[in-house]
Amino acid sequence: MRIVVLAGGIGGARFLRGLKAAAPDADITVIGNTGDDIHLFGLKVCPDLDTVMYTLGGGINEEQGWGRSDETFQVKGELAAYGVGPEWFGLGDRDFATHIVRTQMLSAGYPLSAVTEALCERWQPGVRLLPMSDDRIETHVAVETDGERKAVHFQEYWVRLRASVDALAVVPVGAEQAKPAPGVLEAIGAADVVLFPPSNPVVSVGTILAVPGIREAIAEAGVPVVGLSPIVGNAPVRGMADKVLAAVGVESSAAAVAEHYGSGLLDGWLVDTADADAVPRVEAAGIRGRAVPLMMTDIEATAAMAREALALAEEVRA
Amino acid sequence: MRIVVLAGGIGGARFLRGLKAAAPDADITVIGNTGDDIHLFGLKVCPDLDTVMYTLGGGINEEQGWGRSDETFQVKGELAAYGVGPEWFGLGDRDFATHIVRTQMLSAGYPLSAVTEALCERWQPGVRLLPMSDDRIETHVAVETDGERKAVHFQEYWVRLRASVDALAVVPVGAEQAKPAPGVLEAIGAADVVLFPPSNPVVSVGTILAVPGIREAIAEAGVPVVGLSPIVGNAPVRGMADKVLAAVGVESSAAAVAEHYGSGLLDGWLVDTADADAVPRVEAAGIRGRAVPLMMTDIEATAAMAREALALAEEVRA
Repeated sequence: MRIVVLAGGIGGARFLRGLKAAAPDADITVIGNTGDDIHLFGLKVCPDLDTVMYTLGGGINEEQGWGRSDETFQVKGELAAYGVGPEWFGLGDRDFATHIVRTQMLSAGYPLSAVTEALCERWQPGVRLLPMSDDRIETHVAVETDGERKAVHFQEYWVRLRASVDALAVVPVGAEQAKPAPGVLEAIGAADVVLFPPSNPVVSVGTILAVPGIREAIAEAGVPVVGLSPIVGNAPVRGMADKVLAAVGVESSAAAVAEHYGSGLLDGWLVDTADADAVPRVEAAGIRGRAVPLMMTDIEATAAMAREALALAEEVRA
Repeated sequence: MRIVVLAGGIGGARFLRGLKAAAPDADITVIGNTGDDIHLFGLKVCPDLDTVMYTLGGGINEEQGWGRSDETFQVKGELAAYGVGPEWFGLGDRDFATHIVRTQMLSAGYPLSAVTEALCERWQPGVRLLPMSDDRIETHVAVETDGERKAVHFQEYWVRLRASVDALAVVPVGAEQAKPAPGVLEAIGAADVVLFPPSNPVVSVGTILAVPGIREAIAEAGVPVVGLSPIVGNAPVRGMADKVLAAVGVESSAAAVAEHYGSGLLDGWLVDTADADAVPRVEAAGIRGRAVPLMMTDIEATAAMAREALALAEEVRA
């Protein structure tokens, strides 16, 4: 079975670990969000791609959900001693090496997709990891501070401001001119099922869908598209998705997120058992709904979620 | 007193520490060799500038003579795990930060001289450290391996090959088109004395002198130019200077190095007491010679060398 998964960072990566356990023989292609990529200290950092790569490759900091295990912070300390920031982005020494290799390859002319493939040679994530695009796309968030409206990089909004101010708009700058990375449309076209993990529907999955051609390819693939709600009990399971949902005028609820994706894209939607009463509203939107436990407490619980998603896909297909 | 010093790496840096102790009120400008600069992992590494900066700023690995104290090697280990080399160049995590800052500033358009000044803001070396040039100059060494002649980067010759094969030629690639960095000629023009520390006469001092205008400015400055022999008892005190001296047809002796600089450039030359019999030959070449202890065993011994150099300069001046 060929499965395509649109993945953001932590939520996507953890779901993928469960999916691999649930479908060990599946051929999984991951289309990774690159909208929160950022240049720091002259280096290209791809937080979501790396979180997927480290998580599936066994190098992740498990507690934190991002960054490397057994990490040290000598480089960061030295950069601070030079007065070079930002200090709010926590890059560790092991992590730095990844960005150094990536930046060197990009400077040598390799596209991000080729660089990601090269990095995955080491990590062997057991999936094919593709960036959504080789073109530069940067998610910016419009905020108002001291009565003035300005746009900040998503990472600044998320990590430095910790989403403490309202997001007025979320704009994937550069997306309109971007093309899907090589292999992305082909993978969607050849897929048996497409899954949206419980990733952020605006700044993760939404950004991937903003690359011209990807949404259309999924809608027209003629295969089941099933998602898992990142919202449980009207709040994000982790992160601050409610903040960016508000920016796009979507309430923070499992049903509203399904409606936001819409029946033109989504065929099935899993909500948590706590949100069982949302199922009728999901189905009223023309999307097959089901309530199952959606807490990724461990790999087995996550694998069960993946099995439910695949079962719902088969139900939709039949 | 304004002193200009032409410095390579370890020998130059250690001599400077002694000079600062010997002449605490002097205004010292260091013209640093950049011929052994190298791009590694997409980062610009300036070994000699950094050795001077770290040594005078208190951040040097004392035993090793180069690199940072309390160093760790996480980044290097990760790069190796990615299969990205070279592995023969030992960059530590703390050291990496310097190269990251430097590369970021260079990419932003700052010349190396401005970058060096910015890095020295942190290290406060107590001297004005100028790269010999803002232009890229790379010392290449011609070697013969397996019957084939080829040129390798100086660092590859020095660090990877450990000068184990003969150097057939030493070429500062790019020097002919290079200009002295801002402030270099002005510092020489305003100097009261110019010193050549016991640095490598070919790949350190020689490379600096290969930048058009520097040799001429020193020769025409009309102030005493005094050097200290890096060769003691027909062998380099440290390093492998004999290998590169052979490449330029100079025997490995204190007197021969003085003759190599020549009386058109050099006014005074200190040899070690072990080479006292070289003094007549030095003086026959039109250079005032003196035999004094030249072992930089500690700061006091090094300060004594600096005092001897300054005393010889005054003798020459009178």
